[in-house]
Amino acid sequence: MLVNPIKDGIVLDHITAGKGMELYKILGLSELECTVAVITNATSVKMGKKDIIKIDGVVKLDLDIIGYIDPGVTVNIIRDAVVVERRHLKLPAIISGVKRCKNPRCITSTEQELTQTFKLVDEETKTYRCIYCESKVK
Amino acid sequence: MLVNPIKDGIVLDHITAGKGMELYKILGLSELECTVAVITNATSVKMGKKDIIKIDGVVKLDLDIIGYIDPGVTVNIIRDAVVVERRHLKLPAIISGVKRCKNPRCITSTEQELTQTFKLVDEETKTYRCIYCESKVK
Repeated sequence: MLVNPIKDGIVLDHITAGKGMELYKILGLSELECTVAVITNATSVKMGKKDIIKIDGVVKLDLDIIGYIDPGVTVNIIRDAVVVERRHLKLPAIISGVKRCKNPRCITSTEQELTQTFKLVDEETKTYRCIYCESKVK
Repeated sequence: MLVNPIKDGIVLDHITAGKGMELYKILGLSELECTVAVITNATSVKMGKKDIIKIDGVVKLDLDIIGYIDPGVTVNIIRDAVVVERRHLKLPAIISGVKRCKNPRCITSTEQELTQTFKLVDEETKTYRCIYCESKVK
């Protein structure tokens, strides 16, 4: 099954099979008014199977969230049916507003207006720690 | 955005815009190993906007559930890239195993092995009632 090129928009390619719907949800794509296609278990030479998301509209996506959920994703920016930019993501150094610190004694538990922020401390094990109390992200 | 024809499979067309993901979930399509595409907010001459689900594999779907969630869906059965059957759905007379009766005094609350079953009592208002206690589906 192929999905024809879109005119102006974004294609998230090489999504780990099974993570397409998670990205669809966390990026809030159901709120968009433009056409969005989520293709799961597409055949991939490189990966065997992969998911793909095609967004037929010019929108701004949080690439840090995508990189955190699935750092292997390729982001293709399409203008006039041509790929004008291709970005390979990596684990972001900082993530904000995605996860909550689970430590009940962390200051973010009582000071609710603080943004939940975590920094990458070990790229290999994908370990993030709270910038306030240093608890690991579970 | 167009999605090329599939070889052998099923296309659920004319899904009410916004209900594609609900159908994806309730039909358990994430469990399938074949390629599945969910297209939301596709342009439709008849409906303005619609969702579409394309399943690139021969699978059995519960048409009663689809008819209950969204009776306007058209089911296209594809063999060798040709539509060999097109079914227009309607509200099913009976639904089983989709909803639970909310009446705490219904026999299905105590007799857990009974299948939750509801019958259509008014097509116009899409009203279903429990076959045991006659409570309306909420």
